[in-house]
Amino acid sequence: MSQQIIEAYQRIKDHINKTPVMTSRTLNKLVSAQIYVKCENFQRIGAFKARGAFNAIQLLIDDSNPAGVITHSSGNHAQAVALASHELGIQALIVMPENAPVVKKEATKEYGATIIECGNQPGDRVAKTEEIVQKYGYPLIHPYNDYKIIHGAGTAAYELLTEVGKLDYVLAPVGGGGLLSGTSLCVKSLYPESIVLGVEPLNANDAYLSFMDGGKIFPSVNPNTIADGLRTSLGDITFKTIKENVNDIITVSELEILSSMKFLWERMKVVVEPSGAVPLAGLFKLANEKSNYSIKDKKIGLIISGGNIDLTDFFEILTQKLGKKV
Amino acid sequence: MSQQIIEAYQRIKDHINKTPVMTSRTLNKLVSAQIYVKCENFQRIGAFKARGAFNAIQLLIDDSNPAGVITHSSGNHAQAVALASHELGIQALIVMPENAPVVKKEATKEYGATIIECGNQPGDRVAKTEEIVQKYGYPLIHPYNDYKIIHGAGTAAYELLTEVGKLDYVLAPVGGGGLLSGTSLCVKSLYPESIVLGVEPLNANDAYLSFMDGGKIFPSVNPNTIADGLRTSLGDITFKTIKENVNDIITVSELEILSSMKFLWERMKVVVEPSGAVPLAGLFKLANEKSNYSIKDKKIGLIISGGNIDLTDFFEILTQKLGKKV
Repeated sequence: MSQQIIEAYQRIKDHINKTPVMTSRTLNKLVSAQIYVKCENFQRIGAFKARGAFNAIQLLIDDSNPAGVITHSSGNHAQAVALASHELGIQALIVMPENAPVVKKEATKEYGATIIECGNQPGDRVAKTEEIVQKYGYPLIHPYNDYKIIHGAGTAAYELLTEVGKLDYVLAPVGGGGLLSGTSLCVKSLYPESIVLGVEPLNANDAYLSFMDGGKIFPSVNPNTIADGLRTSLGDITFKTIKENVNDIITVSELEILSSMKFLWERMKVVVEPSGAVPLAGLFKLANEKSNYSIKDKKIGLIISGGNIDLTDFFEILTQKLGKKV
Repeated sequence: MSQQIIEAYQRIKDHINKTPVMTSRTLNKLVSAQIYVKCENFQRIGAFKARGAFNAIQLLIDDSNPAGVITHSSGNHAQAVALASHELGIQALIVMPENAPVVKKEATKEYGATIIECGNQPGDRVAKTEEIVQKYGYPLIHPYNDYKIIHGAGTAAYELLTEVGKLDYVLAPVGGGGLLSGTSLCVKSLYPESIVLGVEPLNANDAYLSFMDGGKIFPSVNPNTIADGLRTSLGDITFKTIKENVNDIITVSELEILSSMKFLWERMKVVVEPSGAVPLAGLFKLANEKSNYSIKDKKIGLIISGGNIDLTDFFEILTQKLGKKV
């Protein structure tokens, strides 16, 4: 399985950033372990999604050379597909809800993609996407339930392990499960005895429930979490992959997510979005609470998924303070 | 001159972080040049000041092995001296104004330093420091007007040039002038034809005025800038060094500083304090306005001095939003 991730890496490496692995003496001391933070917030478009998009689109070009691709997303996947399509020279049609943030629509358009608006109801997106696929005949790139996307996402873990060697634990966030699937496939094929843990917001614990059940996928219904990248449900492919390769899924509260995000900003000086801080919240949980996993003196990798967060409020405050001053 | 910086580097390298040099395709495109961002916000204590502190204290230990050191600072230098003293096994006495932020006092104490409070008037700090030096007989480590500190600070540029080779321009912020002095000594001794520019807030343009005058040091009088690390005046050593090695000093407005900081946070995902964003503001100025310096297609280094900024307001907002949500 790792072979496909290595091939994906060869395919995309000239298009993506080899993101840094950061360490912190303060963090290591705090949790009594060696932590390696793989910073996909420094990836192109600010999130790991660029990896899957480049892999999927290049594979589609090699395979059938379509004139365009179609996807639906209001988040990082939209920008990733827009960027990769532009750079690889094909058209991108992206279905987005009418009420998606203007800033996200603009960013996606900037990369040269065409936005196709749909209604704001849960079913609208899928219906509109199917309509567009029928109309144009371009292949659909699912945001996560697709091996091309999963293998692309797995290249982050591949870079991490290539750089730091075997890890006792690897923690990744889980939403739709693309990143966790790719991470677990990569880690388990290189080091079968390494432990891979998914970390999920307690307020969006559908993957946790599905994993515990083991049989059926629990859908994510109006999840109330600031980790906006982790609100989606598993797909059949990600569910299967996670069941086969992930050791466990642990859940974290909203306040735990926020305080982990604060640690990353304040102490490690990296801008991370709430979803990206979720694995650190999981690590703190393992360090502070009784669990089946002893992390003392272990080597642990955290996959930080992205850093796209609206900073308007913060800079508004700073500008106001400036107003009083200058 | 570079020899002393290389020696400083050998002396401190096991104690400091070799900070990453970051690049951004977006930034390069925006200014039509190749930009190398030396991220001292990822340095220990969150700022380049750790370099000078370790160098100065190790040199003092090698020289006279004092039981302690004394300094005055309410900022990054205080924490740097506290950390280095603790790690090198000597006492640190740090003079701070009574009204210094509690969070800064606490952070300095956490490293094991002893805080000695002084009054809040301009002269109070120096008077109290002299009193303490008399009383204890420990050597004083000036925050910037000291070659030990300057050569330590210069190791950031040394790492940068060692990693990326010759640069056409190097831009560093200027406050007291320690970082700019060390940077210029390093760059000019390795590549005499490289251009070194200091960048200073227009609202604290004392170094600019001194540099233009060339004869006397203009003091910084109640400077009104958000770049709190750049409010100090030059010292005789830094003034001399800057006159001899720096090509020019350019000034930037408060809004230019803020928008450069926003670029670093939003697009490059790094938490940088206002002082640290000042060189990028200078770069944008060179890219957008007519000047003596053509940067098109040039290789340019920016020294980002630090990332210590109070994030309380921002996380307050996020927590409040959470309150409404969960």
